[in-house]
Amino acid sequence: MAIGKRIWAIADGYIPGWSKGMQPQLTSHEAICILNTDDEPALIEIIIYFSNRNPMGPFTLTVPPKRTKHLRLNDLAIPESIPHGVDYACTIESNVPIVVQHTRLDSRQSENALFSTIAFSTD
Amino acid sequence: MAIGKRIWAIADGYIPGWSKGMQPQLTSHEAICILNTDDEPALIEIIIYFSNRNPMGPFTLTVPPKRTKHLRLNDLAIPESIPHGVDYACTIESNVPIVVQHTRLDSRQSENALFSTIAFSTD
Amino acid sequence: MAIGKRIWAIADGYIPGWSKGMQPQLTSHEAICILNTDDEPALIEIIIYFSNRNPMGPFTLTVPPKRTKHLRLNDLAIPESIPHGVDYACTIESNVPIVVQHTRLDSRQSENALFSTIAFSTD
Amino acid sequence: MAIGKRIWAIADGYIPGWSKGMQPQLTSHEAICILNTDDEPALIEIIIYFSNRNPMGPFTLTVPPKRTKHLRLNDLAIPESIPHGVDYACTIESNVPIVVQHTRLDSRQSENALFSTIAFSTD
Repeated sequence: MAIGKRIWAIADGYIPGWSKGMQPQLTSHEAICILNTDDEPALIEIIIYFSNRNPMGPFTLTVPPKRTKHLRLNDLAIPESIPHGVDYACTIESNVPIVVQHTRLDSRQSENALFSTIAFSTD
Repeated sequence: MAIGKRIWAIADGYIPGWSKGMQPQLTSHEAICILNTDDEPALIEIIIYFSNRNPMGPFTLTVPPKRTKHLRLNDLAIPESIPHGVDYACTIESNVPIVVQHTRLDSRQSENALFSTIAFSTD
Repeated sequence: MAIGKRIWAIADGYIPGWSKGMQPQLTSHEAICILNTDDEPALIEIIIYFSNRNPMGPFTLTVPPKRTKHLRLNDLAIPESIPHGVDYACTIESNVPIVVQHTRLDSRQSENALFSTIAFSTD
Repeated sequence: MAIGKRIWAIADGYIPGWSKGMQPQLTSHEAICILNTDDEPALIEIIIYFSNRNPMGPFTLTVPPKRTKHLRLNDLAIPESIPHGVDYACTIESNVPIVVQHTRLDSRQSENALFSTIAFSTD
């Protein structure tokens, strides 16, 4: 029996506008970390919401069974990229239960700052 | 079907008393980030609680359908402003389901510190 | 109707062993932030758990109706103080629903680090 | 009645590849902090998931009744160690209810960064 929920959301999306320090480890970024403990691949759709324009997406990805995927939102490119320095939010929907954690590394100053939280989940 | 809950709360509110670094990106601040995936506008009331005085508010705002709003609590002004350097807490109530995430950027020193957590939710 | 739950827990308690920077704002500390939205006072008992000794407490406190209390765990003294630089955990139990958020400020280096999370709750 | 759930998961596991500052307090590390409020020992199994290889484990440990254990994932060695600088995720399963919190200290730069979140839980 897989662990998790099928519907997840984060509200504080923001890719800092610049970076300092060693690349790519310390590039300012946001990650959506997904764990799929199921025996089936997780087929996932991500929708990005903004404050002043229509939603973007869906972005689609597959997380194989018994695998994790740490997706840097900076790297999304199809159908389009998330602009940097802009407020956004996102929903993550899967066909099987998954666990989602949201992490930001902000290296706009010399020393990096970090946060992470388990995302909001529902069925 | 919109994602989220109608009633949210955070307990650790605190706007740091000063800031360093580039303004306004690195101004010390607290944000209540709200995602409204509903087809209707979210009509929201925020109440601020203190340790030694009566609650303040409600502050009201609207988040349009399919939009996010990252509200800097530093910017609330009507009916009054939240004092800086003072412990507070808050509740966020909406007419439609929303998702709320609470983030603080503390730039009181040369390098900023950051935290974020999905808020407490109930129906 | 008050918001929250009656039983809360955190697992990662740790008061850093030293501090740098302006006192008391930037003293290394852990805080249990409590919001009581009820019309009655919240009568609260805190138990501290360790890795290699019996639990300590209960510490008791009251949060008045419609108030928040940001309790620095460094300041607990009766029946005894929490040692610094030692792993601990804690439970928080209340007679009325409350919301609890756990925050650490670590100023052991020149620039402070910060985390916060809504605690685990149950009824 | 013990507090917590029996099944927990985190999705953003990553042990930073290097450290600066005083050792061992400021060694870059990830911790799974477990609280067992039960009267019985908690018998725990941890499975580590990766992005591109089969899961590792189970790692087993016991948390005595009324005790906390802050496990540095860097220290796991049997059946094998978690590689540094590699994305992973993990599940934590217990025979009695426990509370789990996930914390990372990243000291790859001169000043450390910190995050913590209550893990995802289910029964």
